[in-house]
Amino acid sequence: MVSLNSDMGESFGIHSFGNDDALVPLIDTANVACGFHAGDPTGIRETVEKALAAGVTVGAHPGLPDLVGFGRREMKLDRDETADLVRYQVGSLVAFLDAAGASLDHIKPHGSLYGMAARQEDIMDAICDVAVQYGVPVFGMAGTEHEAVANKRNVPFVAEFYVDLGYRADGSLIIARRPRATPVEDAQQRARKALTEGLATADTGEDFPMRVDSICVHSDTPNAVEVARAVRGVIDSVRG
Amino acid sequence: MVSLNSDMGESFGIHSFGNDDALVPLIDTANVACGFHAGDPTGIRETVEKALAAGVTVGAHPGLPDLVGFGRREMKLDRDETADLVRYQVGSLVAFLDAAGASLDHIKPHGSLYGMAARQEDIMDAICDVAVQYGVPVFGMAGTEHEAVANKRNVPFVAEFYVDLGYRADGSLIIARRPRATPVEDAQQRARKALTEGLATADTGEDFPMRVDSICVHSDTPNAVEVARAVRGVIDSVRG
Amino acid sequence: MVSLNSDMGESFGIHSFGNDDALVPLIDTANVACGFHAGDPTGIRETVEKALAAGVTVGAHPGLPDLVGFGRREMKLDRDETADLVRYQVGSLVAFLDAAGASLDHIKPHGSLYGMAARQEDIMDAICDVAVQYGVPVFGMAGTEHEAVANKRNVPFVAEFYVDLGYRADGSLIIARRPRATPVEDAQQRARKALTEGLATADTGEDFPMRVDSICVHSDTPNAVEVARAVRGVIDSVRG
Amino acid sequence: MVSLNSDMGESFGIHSFGNDDALVPLIDTANVACGFHAGDPTGIRETVEKALAAGVTVGAHPGLPDLVGFGRREMKLDRDETADLVRYQVGSLVAFLDAAGASLDHIKPHGSLYGMAARQEDIMDAICDVAVQYGVPVFGMAGTEHEAVANKRNVPFVAEFYVDLGYRADGSLIIARRPRATPVEDAQQRARKALTEGLATADTGEDFPMRVDSICVHSDTPNAVEVARAVRGVIDSVRG
Repeated sequence: MVSLNSDMGESFGIHSFGNDDALVPLIDTANVACGFHAGDPTGIRETVEKALAAGVTVGAHPGLPDLVGFGRREMKLDRDETADLVRYQVGSLVAFLDAAGASLDHIKPHGSLYGMAARQEDIMDAICDVAVQYGVPVFGMAGTEHEAVANKRNVPFVAEFYVDLGYRADGSLIIARRPRATPVEDAQQRARKALTEGLATADTGEDFPMRVDSICVHSDTPNAVEVARAVRGVIDSVRG
Repeated sequence: MVSLNSDMGESFGIHSFGNDDALVPLIDTANVACGFHAGDPTGIRETVEKALAAGVTVGAHPGLPDLVGFGRREMKLDRDETADLVRYQVGSLVAFLDAAGASLDHIKPHGSLYGMAARQEDIMDAICDVAVQYGVPVFGMAGTEHEAVANKRNVPFVAEFYVDLGYRADGSLIIARRPRATPVEDAQQRARKALTEGLATADTGEDFPMRVDSICVHSDTPNAVEVARAVRGVIDSVRG
Repeated sequence: MVSLNSDMGESFGIHSFGNDDALVPLIDTANVACGFHAGDPTGIRETVEKALAAGVTVGAHPGLPDLVGFGRREMKLDRDETADLVRYQVGSLVAFLDAAGASLDHIKPHGSLYGMAARQEDIMDAICDVAVQYGVPVFGMAGTEHEAVANKRNVPFVAEFYVDLGYRADGSLIIARRPRATPVEDAQQRARKALTEGLATADTGEDFPMRVDSICVHSDTPNAVEVARAVRGVIDSVRG
Repeated sequence: MVSLNSDMGESFGIHSFGNDDALVPLIDTANVACGFHAGDPTGIRETVEKALAAGVTVGAHPGLPDLVGFGRREMKLDRDETADLVRYQVGSLVAFLDAAGASLDHIKPHGSLYGMAARQEDIMDAICDVAVQYGVPVFGMAGTEHEAVANKRNVPFVAEFYVDLGYRADGSLIIARRPRATPVEDAQQRARKALTEGLATADTGEDFPMRVDSICVHSDTPNAVEVARAVRGVIDSVRG
């Protein structure tokens, strides 16, 4: 069963993208920012409450310690400090889940930490330390170190497909520092193609195989809600 | 000549209230956040460029060191550390102004620092140290320590009126942690009454004298642009 | 049985007070900073490992979000955001304890948060929310809201005595922004008097009743290790 | 005339390395941290006052926005955001210098920003933007992009030699995340060799040419003061 996931709680203080309320009824599981690239304690609590009230499960979305860069500026980190900062962030989220009587669903690294873990075995290994501790799967990209290290560590792996980002022909993601809107029809078509044919299309036109356990819709694009609604429709129709 | 001022650049990283572009053509002078309660280096530069390109002068809007609380959670500070954190913030903004060939227009403390300076002589005195250094006026509320200390220090004082906040009968402001929309007609009526009769009305109904050198419209309310446009109209009509 | 507790892990990044290694063999339980007033993820892990290796139990030492002020500048916080920021910090520490196979011993608020909780019922009540969640006692000052609210909430309460801080005649603490050394003989004498006679002496000379379940020695004073060694001696001799 | 420079003010809040008081009588010019990798407003003011009182000139020591990593974790930054964060930091320091009636002596990037600027033309070019604005030289390593870009931009360049760090045979620096003590005799010998023969020795034994306009002694090594005193002696004797 393919799920729909989205980042939530990526506000900071009074700053908010404002899409969370509209997104929460559409998704299956939320990746909640933990305070390093976005998110603050009160925002985390409110997001957790909102998600659980809607029957949405909650995973941790730990990021690099860089609020200004929103976790999208790569930093050189060693294995141990990566494990430490992921553990710190996941632990803080788990406290709010525990207070609400819920448990952690998964870990999905954010932004550049996600990209670093896709390429660097030791970074992904550090993230797996925390996944093992909490007994949860890691979300990532099939065919990268995400999958390879998760398999090696016996951490359940959930392969994600992004309908609102571009791909290179080698299957790697093209991540912009500031998000852009994806035409709803494009997102819909990509979702359908991935779910029915197991294929994605690179920005340069080539098709390549795409395994999908979960589709991710970003919450900080201008038309995030429309994209999520369209993808929800595709998942439900394919499922039906 | 009464001016219209507004806070700008109160974004943080990729978080933004998004009203700056629409507000800038309507105002005379911008209070630019300097990184402690909001604002980051790139955002400061972009805001300065935007304001100057529109012929809007730029003042510093230093705040308490509290991004999560947006500078709206009062902190106990002594006189010297207040002067230090105001000087640090003003200096950083002046670097961007200087690079753009412009100079600082004024200093207006933000949020709780504004409120603290209205009540505590030593806090306002610390702010005046920096105003004296740069030879600029301080924006504040008439009849408070803002005005008393500025006068004592020979710092030019600009009395502000807020059309989008409530007042108590003693003339003090009612500041909410999260901003609410003010009906445009209310803002318009308040501006006209202050400009033509020199009066404001407390939330409890009493009129009290209101001296106005500048009207402030907050940029982070849901209808900031509509309110600013209405007030602009009042200022221009009264002026004419 | 009276215990000896000390703050540990109050370093930040490469900044460190450097007393932790010498203090750990002397104390019974450590209050570990959680990242808001001091402490970073790697430092927390190292401190937890150090404490557990020495047989020292670990409590959480959550503080105000103010690294520059080291949590010693009072901030106005409402009840909910206090609970949120305490929960966030305690949760992050618990993640490291859990990874090391240990569990949380207690919660002791730091600096101004400690002082605020001593005077404000709602602040202490918020802290008790988290103590209830983890089933741990709160450390605090007898005769203040610390004790009153803990009792009301059925949270076990551990009464602390400070040998390296001054007291007023009403039993309230005099907290300086920067710590000073306490003569070792004074600390020794205060510890003995509190343990054997149940009395403390105010800076103004008056004796007043002092209930002691745990003696706290600060780790950031210049002679913290000498003071801790002296107090350890007193506790052990009285106990014997 | 070869000068002796050292980083100062690299404390944060109440955390301090504690060597500044002893170092200031020994050096000619201080590189003062500006708040991003270390330093806070009050610490900056105190450091500036201390340096100026001792007749030591003050340069800016801007770093990456990473307090926990002390600016020693490389981050991917684009040219514009680099110029922005250097300008912000330099501007804040200049405010304190201006208040003290002094002017900026130079800019020396800190830690990984120094290393990035040595290798990446666009990063050094961004730093030169700010050097041009203030009309000051940039300190750096001869034979790197530091020198090449400074020359291209007509920014005066001051070539530094490090007596307390290792070099590779290609002249590049070996920077550790945590500083170690350098034997005083080694520092002395290196200083004398560089000043009299224009040579440095790689950790692997090879000599290579070393142009020296200024010798840097780090303030955060355990024996910083002894090293600085020894190097001061060498500079003064060679000079005489």
